[in-house]
Amino acid sequence: MSHNSFGQLFRITTWGESHGKAIGCVVDGCPPGIPITEAEIQAELDRRRPGQSRFTTQRQEPDQVKILSGVFEDDRTGGPVTTGTPISLLIENVDQRSRDYSEIRDRYRPGHADYTYDVKYGVRDYRGGGRSSARETATRVAAGAIARKILPGVSIRGALVELGGIAIDRDRFDWAETANNPFFSPDAEAAEKWAAHLDEIRKSGSSVGAIVEVVAEGVPAGIGAPIYGKLDQDLASAMMSINAVKGVEIGNGFEAARIRGEENADPMRAGNDGRPRFLSNNAGGVLGGISTGQPVVVRFAVKPTSSILTPVPSVTATGEEVDVFTKGRHDPCVGIRAVPVGEAMMALVLADHYLRQRAQSGSQT
Amino acid sequence: MSHNSFGQLFRITTWGESHGKAIGCVVDGCPPGIPITEAEIQAELDRRRPGQSRFTTQRQEPDQVKILSGVFEDDRTGGPVTTGTPISLLIENVDQRSRDYSEIRDRYRPGHADYTYDVKYGVRDYRGGGRSSARETATRVAAGAIARKILPGVSIRGALVELGGIAIDRDRFDWAETANNPFFSPDAEAAEKWAAHLDEIRKSGSSVGAIVEVVAEGVPAGIGAPIYGKLDQDLASAMMSINAVKGVEIGNGFEAARIRGEENADPMRAGNDGRPRFLSNNAGGVLGGISTGQPVVVRFAVKPTSSILTPVPSVTATGEEVDVFTKGRHDPCVGIRAVPVGEAMMALVLADHYLRQRAQSGSQT
Amino acid sequence: MSHNSFGQLFRITTWGESHGKAIGCVVDGCPPGIPITEAEIQAELDRRRPGQSRFTTQRQEPDQVKILSGVFEDDRTGGPVTTGTPISLLIENVDQRSRDYSEIRDRYRPGHADYTYDVKYGVRDYRGGGRSSARETATRVAAGAIARKILPGVSIRGALVELGGIAIDRDRFDWAETANNPFFSPDAEAAEKWAAHLDEIRKSGSSVGAIVEVVAEGVPAGIGAPIYGKLDQDLASAMMSINAVKGVEIGNGFEAARIRGEENADPMRAGNDGRPRFLSNNAGGVLGGISTGQPVVVRFAVKPTSSILTPVPSVTATGEEVDVFTKGRHDPCVGIRAVPVGEAMMALVLADHYLRQRAQSGSQT
Amino acid sequence: MSHNSFGQLFRITTWGESHGKAIGCVVDGCPPGIPITEAEIQAELDRRRPGQSRFTTQRQEPDQVKILSGVFEDDRTGGPVTTGTPISLLIENVDQRSRDYSEIRDRYRPGHADYTYDVKYGVRDYRGGGRSSARETATRVAAGAIARKILPGVSIRGALVELGGIAIDRDRFDWAETANNPFFSPDAEAAEKWAAHLDEIRKSGSSVGAIVEVVAEGVPAGIGAPIYGKLDQDLASAMMSINAVKGVEIGNGFEAARIRGEENADPMRAGNDGRPRFLSNNAGGVLGGISTGQPVVVRFAVKPTSSILTPVPSVTATGEEVDVFTKGRHDPCVGIRAVPVGEAMMALVLADHYLRQRAQSGSQT
Repeated sequence: MSHNSFGQLFRITTWGESHGKAIGCVVDGCPPGIPITEAEIQAELDRRRPGQSRFTTQRQEPDQVKILSGVFEDDRTGGPVTTGTPISLLIENVDQRSRDYSEIRDRYRPGHADYTYDVKYGVRDYRGGGRSSARETATRVAAGAIARKILPGVSIRGALVELGGIAIDRDRFDWAETANNPFFSPDAEAAEKWAAHLDEIRKSGSSVGAIVEVVAEGVPAGIGAPIYGKLDQDLASAMMSINAVKGVEIGNGFEAARIRGEENADPMRAGNDGRPRFLSNNAGGVLGGISTGQPVVVRFAVKPTSSILTPVPSVTATGEEVDVFTKGRHDPCVGIRAVPVGEAMMALVLADHYLRQRAQSGSQT
Repeated sequence: MSHNSFGQLFRITTWGESHGKAIGCVVDGCPPGIPITEAEIQAELDRRRPGQSRFTTQRQEPDQVKILSGVFEDDRTGGPVTTGTPISLLIENVDQRSRDYSEIRDRYRPGHADYTYDVKYGVRDYRGGGRSSARETATRVAAGAIARKILPGVSIRGALVELGGIAIDRDRFDWAETANNPFFSPDAEAAEKWAAHLDEIRKSGSSVGAIVEVVAEGVPAGIGAPIYGKLDQDLASAMMSINAVKGVEIGNGFEAARIRGEENADPMRAGNDGRPRFLSNNAGGVLGGISTGQPVVVRFAVKPTSSILTPVPSVTATGEEVDVFTKGRHDPCVGIRAVPVGEAMMALVLADHYLRQRAQSGSQT
Repeated sequence: MSHNSFGQLFRITTWGESHGKAIGCVVDGCPPGIPITEAEIQAELDRRRPGQSRFTTQRQEPDQVKILSGVFEDDRTGGPVTTGTPISLLIENVDQRSRDYSEIRDRYRPGHADYTYDVKYGVRDYRGGGRSSARETATRVAAGAIARKILPGVSIRGALVELGGIAIDRDRFDWAETANNPFFSPDAEAAEKWAAHLDEIRKSGSSVGAIVEVVAEGVPAGIGAPIYGKLDQDLASAMMSINAVKGVEIGNGFEAARIRGEENADPMRAGNDGRPRFLSNNAGGVLGGISTGQPVVVRFAVKPTSSILTPVPSVTATGEEVDVFTKGRHDPCVGIRAVPVGEAMMALVLADHYLRQRAQSGSQT
Repeated sequence: MSHNSFGQLFRITTWGESHGKAIGCVVDGCPPGIPITEAEIQAELDRRRPGQSRFTTQRQEPDQVKILSGVFEDDRTGGPVTTGTPISLLIENVDQRSRDYSEIRDRYRPGHADYTYDVKYGVRDYRGGGRSSARETATRVAAGAIARKILPGVSIRGALVELGGIAIDRDRFDWAETANNPFFSPDAEAAEKWAAHLDEIRKSGSSVGAIVEVVAEGVPAGIGAPIYGKLDQDLASAMMSINAVKGVEIGNGFEAARIRGEENADPMRAGNDGRPRFLSNNAGGVLGGISTGQPVVVRFAVKPTSSILTPVPSVTATGEEVDVFTKGRHDPCVGIRAVPVGEAMMALVLADHYLRQRAQSGSQT
């Protein structure tokens, strides 16, 4: 049992605090012979990196990743490949500015984990939220970049589909568009509305929530496992483990509770490849915890950033009543940078289940 | 790694198929000295048992549980207590009627796991859905009855809060009412509407979905664990592992994505016990993956039963196109009997985290 | 984490007490499509069954195994095959005679777990040792019979190589002979000496220890895993988990500590199959935790039965000094029946590592 | 499942290759509030550090440890304490001299893991043995230093009790003496003999094996767990995971197989504290997998170093027959430096079981 590890066969163990010397991750169980470079991991990290637009925190972290182990030059290609031993990834913390946080050392920020960590552990690194900071998710993104490499033919993409209550127009959904705006929005018009809305929010010292959708295409049928290793169960666990996430749904999700059986069941017809062809995808690509071959679709709700300039009643560690507001540098909508994190978690869950599938199904060796 | 085990320190391993000889469960990690009787477990099972109203399946299963190990008479009290060794629970399958299912042996029922099991395993017990049947959840309820016993002072209650798109009125929410109607509805008026609606649904050979809410009161602050053992993460995993569940949310859930930071943050004032008193509970009792001391609130969406009389296009195992409808005996709304299952999963998650808390937190031994 | 489960991907969870209603085992992770019958499992159980010669306990247990789940008729062959779901095995306790044990309820039998269970749990099923009885090993043998089925081409055989300090003559080692005497001795002459010696021991109310050797042939090179999943490490864990085992060695074991590097290193020459051919097997078939392709050889030491007629000073649960001797029915040498148990543990370890190998090594999918 | 993690609740994950950039370890599950400094960890590392006498490798590694996370200043004391979050430890590799190893890149060194890694992974970091090098054990010693801190009142000490077939005299056993000679010998006279013997061995380009004994005093009764989490089982696993170990025994170990039941059973008398007082300790402090309160005693056999100057027949990766001898810098007896490693593994196993004990035993919360 480990509270800082995720996955079973493709398994990450993360460590580090927001304002400590470094953060990092050990990726264990990656098969050998997978080509991987620091540059490939860096490319994913750069998508999540703070300070890239006025809509995310101005903390300047280069998030430069180093591979410390588990990768060696391949005899045949000369390029670096995984060796089957644990891959240690290190990201040094550079722009720490601990002074920003000293004054909230004893004040419980509402909506944050300050109080619960104190109750549980009795001691905590209060600088920037310490271990509870979303900074930890950088290591997930780094690990996710490796996970993607063992999912040949699988495309994992994420998008912001709602921000501050303003949803995208599904008819304008275009994956290509997600690279063109600072919100990972698949709908250019929504992105414009969000920009205006978020400017106003930011100026008023407030924050907003968002909904992220992650889709994996190319996942073959048969991935996942009953009863307690269901693919959708592990996705729910993965997404709910992301900071500030309060809800997760698969396929049509909560909408399924509101329609009839015959509307919800995805009809099948004979496919060209001898496998069933589904006529709809309410199931989100998972039935009985096992993939159907359709796109795997997950959405999660991110609450508004708790670090806001608006004062909220709170107490100190010694029980004094205070009003707390957070100066520091913060994302007015943490949901934005949660998009690459959600993609990474999808990749980690799928990589894990791909390895499980190799082990436990199919015919006898 | 086990796909049929749930929990880490309080851990269940379930086994059995819908129409096999029996189903059962091994509860491992239960502390010694806990008084427990078959009757106590039976009482919980009876709440989930089929055939108790016209709104659930007419399959007649007494669901009589036997304790085969792990419980012995206590020297002091003479009554049965746990011994710290694994508790084996057995429920024989009685009313199997396999013949109901023979004709769907090769037909993939839409919305069911028939196809995905076939792809994954190449062989399956097709009778009544075999391992993928919700019958497995009986063993969860049995185990949950034991889990409740190691949560002194914790009250775990579930309710159906929406059925077929018809929600309860929150102002009429009354836990006592859940025992007075066949829907576990906390709102008597909603129960009446649901009865009428479900009669119509049942007659038309259709089915509807539902939303279940489970609340745990009395959970002290400090239960749960960052980063990948978050209490809400484990609850999401637990609920999503229940058959037909498509969405999970904690506290205000998806609603959090639509309000501002200052609306969402739960303000705190100084409590009488020296601990913070929260003025609202949008967080659903969890911050940073750790309990706050407020009620832990989870909701999950259950899709409409896939076994319906209305024909849906499908294919056979050999690729022939067919229309499938399910005669058999089925719940028109599987969400109803999911209520005690949701309670059981809450109890299992909490029991597990109580034991984790004993091990890993607090001061040095 | 589970104290009653063994293995990672091929995983057993055992339950039950010596004199409870039944004992059993859940086998999780067995790949689908493996033909298996109760008769095949029974055949292995019969090798371990008590009461078959005057050298083992006279307790009469038919040890009749039932498969309750996880096996279903195969469409193609009609015969029973595994379905990939958990296999529940049940063995009822028949010849319980609890009265034999009532008088030692409060007396700590020296060399037994009576005292340590009491200290740890505060309550225990004292009948026949309860959970600490070697009766639990019957379920391992049953599970081992299934594990053998997923190891095609692997032969696992065990032998008693020393009893009461009398070792076999290695020059007379003959596997076939192990079926011809009640000791699993590969040396007929040693078996005769042991029979005479054990008759004397039994009459004097004493007991003796023994050394068991288990050899797996046909294990391909590459099975096992550094650093903490070493094949020899898992074998050491497996064998040490057997009741009364006090030592484990791989290959030449403790002898390796007494010879020089050039004597101990197994020289290699080019083999016909392009793979190295080892000229000796001091390593016992494992280097760096990974199999070499040579026979995997493990030996373990079993202490003399602690249940003896000779009185030994002890105390009661309330601190009174007493002399304890055990009437009941006991094996004068528990090492004998440990032979099939050792084989089963070898099979379980190998099956687990075969599945791990499928998952984590070799080239990219 | 992780092949690079050890322990359940007190859990380490190690990473790194002999000649990579660094090696390291993540310690997860350490309770909060434990005072720990880099200097304390360094003190243990220095005991294992190479190059300290002519009897160990001349590789010069300062083995300077850095704590990267999981430790923060305590409000009350100002000193560093654990925070309950993962502790990341880093040791940079300094004296790498990769050139020493280039010529054995394609030659399988007999007794080494070169061949088995190649078969399993198809690619490996051959420099200095890469991941299979005993250099990894430095990280165990570092983690063990933390584990010791959560075992108040427990003394863990190791000694070399046999080298090259020359055993210590038990009558001269003196723990204090282990600090006075380069062998961790508890017998000064044996140390002198070993020095002479090892000088001769070293000059002849050979190597010898050794036997290590580790004893934990002060472990209370009740630590450990049946059936597959036995204290002695986990110790066997721990010690067998150390490089070059071929055998493990608990208490009187293999000797138990050669004596009678009445000789082997440890008699008990009433102790002053109301608990039994054992008159001997053949059991090595463990009965039924649970500690008795007596010293926990484990011994393990270390094979002679496989890296020797004496040529041994072998093959290359391409099947060519060669004679292999290893120049480089090596320990003529790896058993010596295995002493602090054995202590560390004892500490890790005990720390893990202390936390398990907190979680799963004793009375209801």
